[in-house]
Amino acid sequence: MGQLMQGVALTPLKIITNELGNVMHALKKSEDTFTSFGEVYFSLIKEGARKGWKKHHDMVLNIVVPYGKIRFTIFDDRVDSSSYKQYSIFELSPSENYQRLTIHPGLWVAFEGIYKGDSILLNISSIEHDPNEAETCSIDSGIIEYPTF
Amino acid sequence: MGQLMQGVALTPLKIITNELGNVMHALKKSEDTFTSFGEVYFSLIKEGARKGWKKHHDMVLNIVVPYGKIRFTIFDDRVDSSSYKQYSIFELSPSENYQRLTIHPGLWVAFEGIYKGDSILLNISSIEHDPNEAETCSIDSGIIEYPTF
Repeated sequence: MGQLMQGVALTPLKIITNELGNVMHALKKSEDTFTSFGEVYFSLIKEGARKGWKKHHDMVLNIVVPYGKIRFTIFDDRVDSSSYKQYSIFELSPSENYQRLTIHPGLWVAFEGIYKGDSILLNISSIEHDPNEAETCSIDSGIIEYPTF
Repeated sequence: MGQLMQGVALTPLKIITNELGNVMHALKKSEDTFTSFGEVYFSLIKEGARKGWKKHHDMVLNIVVPYGKIRFTIFDDRVDSSSYKQYSIFELSPSENYQRLTIHPGLWVAFEGIYKGDSILLNISSIEHDPNEAETCSIDSGIIEYPTF
């Protein structure tokens, strides 16, 4: 896990244990990392599958993983950034690392399912989905190297 | 499934199938049933467990079930309501009935896990959690009858 790059925040989230089923926080309007509300959606990711790369120009992502385990890889190609050409990698899961990952526009993001079956990503997005505000770059193209372990 | 009572809305949600993992809509700011954004949280519910009854005075609930299957029971004790003393029951799941359940203040709500392990409820709430804006009434007390099948 690298140091946090500019435009990325990781916020520990509360899990309130309950014998009937836990309550797990995701995002409150009053929190520092909240900017605006546009849309909420889920993106499932199968074990071993990778979605990305995608770079948003306007959308702030607020990502929570309520089920499974997902590895997020962020690549910084902002030439004026102190983390230019660097990667940040985060593995989120409800049982081991229940945190909210906030990613501001301008960074390349990919994610991979690292849990059996479908893992579940929740994104509380600052704007509604708009295909024109994001760039994509296939992982398979190799244009942006995808770090593996 | 009964007719919708006043203050309750059910909205079909899109699932965009993808071989890497589906994308499942939850709520957009521009949708009719959106009122305001306060907080997003998850509530898990074990198979056979029941949470409730709870009646909110201010909170509008926007409920989506991304995993498992949950039965929601709504009881109307509003004396001036056309559905006074009636129940509405909804079973939501991503595979069989992927819809958003919007519940306005003033109705009693209980829910039960009807899938193996933990089912997952997402609530996109119109206000932040505030224990003073909700009443509770234990299901076990029998004060409000809990309908079973």
